[in-house]
Amino acid sequence: MADASSTAKYEALHNGIEPPSFKLPLIDNPEIVTANTLKLVEQTPDARKRFLFTTLTRYLHDFIKETKPTTEEWHGTLKFLSRAGQLSTPDRQEMELILDIFGAEALIDTINNPPKDSVTERALLGPFFTEHTHDVSNGDSIASEGKGEYMYVDGRVVDTEGKPIANAVVDAWEADDTGHYDLQYDNGVPDCRGRLRTDAEGKFNFRAIVPIAYPLLSDGPLGELLLAMNRHNMRPSHLHIIVDAPGYEKLVTQFYPSEDKWIDSDSVLGVKKSLVVDLEQVNDVESAKALGFQHPERGFKLFKRDIVMRRKVDA
Amino acid sequence: MADASSTAKYEALHNGIEPPSFKLPLIDNPEIVTANTLKLVEQTPDARKRFLFTTLTRYLHDFIKETKPTTEEWHGTLKFLSRAGQLSTPDRQEMELILDIFGAEALIDTINNPPKDSVTERALLGPFFTEHTHDVSNGDSIASEGKGEYMYVDGRVVDTEGKPIANAVVDAWEADDTGHYDLQYDNGVPDCRGRLRTDAEGKFNFRAIVPIAYPLLSDGPLGELLLAMNRHNMRPSHLHIIVDAPGYEKLVTQFYPSEDKWIDSDSVLGVKKSLVVDLEQVNDVESAKALGFQHPERGFKLFKRDIVMRRKVDA
Repeated sequence: MADASSTAKYEALHNGIEPPSFKLPLIDNPEIVTANTLKLVEQTPDARKRFLFTTLTRYLHDFIKETKPTTEEWHGTLKFLSRAGQLSTPDRQEMELILDIFGAEALIDTINNPPKDSVTERALLGPFFTEHTHDVSNGDSIASEGKGEYMYVDGRVVDTEGKPIANAVVDAWEADDTGHYDLQYDNGVPDCRGRLRTDAEGKFNFRAIVPIAYPLLSDGPLGELLLAMNRHNMRPSHLHIIVDAPGYEKLVTQFYPSEDKWIDSDSVLGVKKSLVVDLEQVNDVESAKALGFQHPERGFKLFKRDIVMRRKVDA
Repeated sequence: MADASSTAKYEALHNGIEPPSFKLPLIDNPEIVTANTLKLVEQTPDARKRFLFTTLTRYLHDFIKETKPTTEEWHGTLKFLSRAGQLSTPDRQEMELILDIFGAEALIDTINNPPKDSVTERALLGPFFTEHTHDVSNGDSIASEGKGEYMYVDGRVVDTEGKPIANAVVDAWEADDTGHYDLQYDNGVPDCRGRLRTDAEGKFNFRAIVPIAYPLLSDGPLGELLLAMNRHNMRPSHLHIIVDAPGYEKLVTQFYPSEDKWIDSDSVLGVKKSLVVDLEQVNDVESAKALGFQHPERGFKLFKRDIVMRRKVDA
């Protein structure tokens, strides 16, 4: 019997599953590796998982056969993925972003959520949403003075028949003129962020700033990969909006000013055509003054956009 | 200007790369996602990397189009991969093993290293090699008494023309009858592990024990995946051997007793047909006594196998 000084450091335990009932040929060429793997993977009891795992096996093996990675390339890839996993936290989606620069999430999203009726399309929530916001009224500003170029957001929330939705909650947040969200500062003060409600005609409007494009955090594998591809690490500027109204599906989306130079080459391919908004330059000082801008002589950009909500289907 | 209390917590920096010189269409269907991703990835300057990245993009997108993962499935997969990365350390190859149960390393190895001439095939080094071993002489035992069923290893190291290679260093190590390596115990004493040299006729022989199959550490994503596939988590029993001789390519390999019940369903598909060895049961007490087994009445298993080395090609 083993004494304390010779106890195994960790116990890897047999999972209780016996060898398969069928006999597999011993491996002496690549085709047998593929055939054996498929036979092993096909044991998956759940039909959906079996489909996913066998399909993954076929694609993985075809990829390897086509690209013939060297052992060094393969082990380099495994290390790269392990580092990405190690950097992944609730605040930093390193693994997710690495697949996103290959278009994964964008593709899944456009397949699963094709544009339908006139309903406003969805976009990612992103890591910078928080309930710690300012409650504002229509016409108020969500940005403190000096945070960037003036923008006025003016829209209506309507249903698919164009009828206004009153009292819908609109959450908006955006990066400031240095490309940072309030959450990225230490002071804990909400800024460039606000929550308001639509009026009886479904209207919402608030002062804000023109959001600024910002880079993805690129001091890890993601950054190395983008450099290896000679690709920039920018996300085009955008305004985050969530609209929530009883009886309607909650809408999480982002709107992208068309004037942004990164608009068509978003590093994560997240920009949807229908979410691009043309900003209108307004230089009329009286209008700017009437809307409450502190320096009306600077003019402002008008962001005008209605939002169409989908009625909830009863479960 | 930002003061100390409002300094951004971390600085994500633009990597200095400008938008591509070409204009990309805005996305409103899956085909545009794929086309845009390919155009972005094709910017990779290095030809080999460009080939790998564009091929990966094609396979990834085809896989997504064929399987149509839900958002939940996709995010579940990303979490799974992140956890695998977080568990990956020099002592635990969680990420690597997850791909290995899909046959990845086995496939890459059989493609890159097809059996050639009569040279003994390679196998993985594995995580349990150490220089901290016993130096033994031919005929000695590498296992302390009581570690398992007796085995006698008897072979020759030869070149591709069958000529003996004298004075080659043979390193051998194996799991004991509980399926553990010495390194997995706390006592720091080498056991079931030894190093010896071939004699003038290229012969090496030593007493050992019949190695025992053991499970992969399965308390993480790897274990969950094998369970989901209804697959066991065992590696068939094997004897690790490294042979090193001046003028020859160092050989790192493993030999697999054919009698093991897991031999054809290795969870990482690592068994090569040419490395499978039939053990011969010897019940002759006099032979066992002559070889030095402490309990010759128990008999032993004879592991007989020559090893063929490839001459180094001058650089």
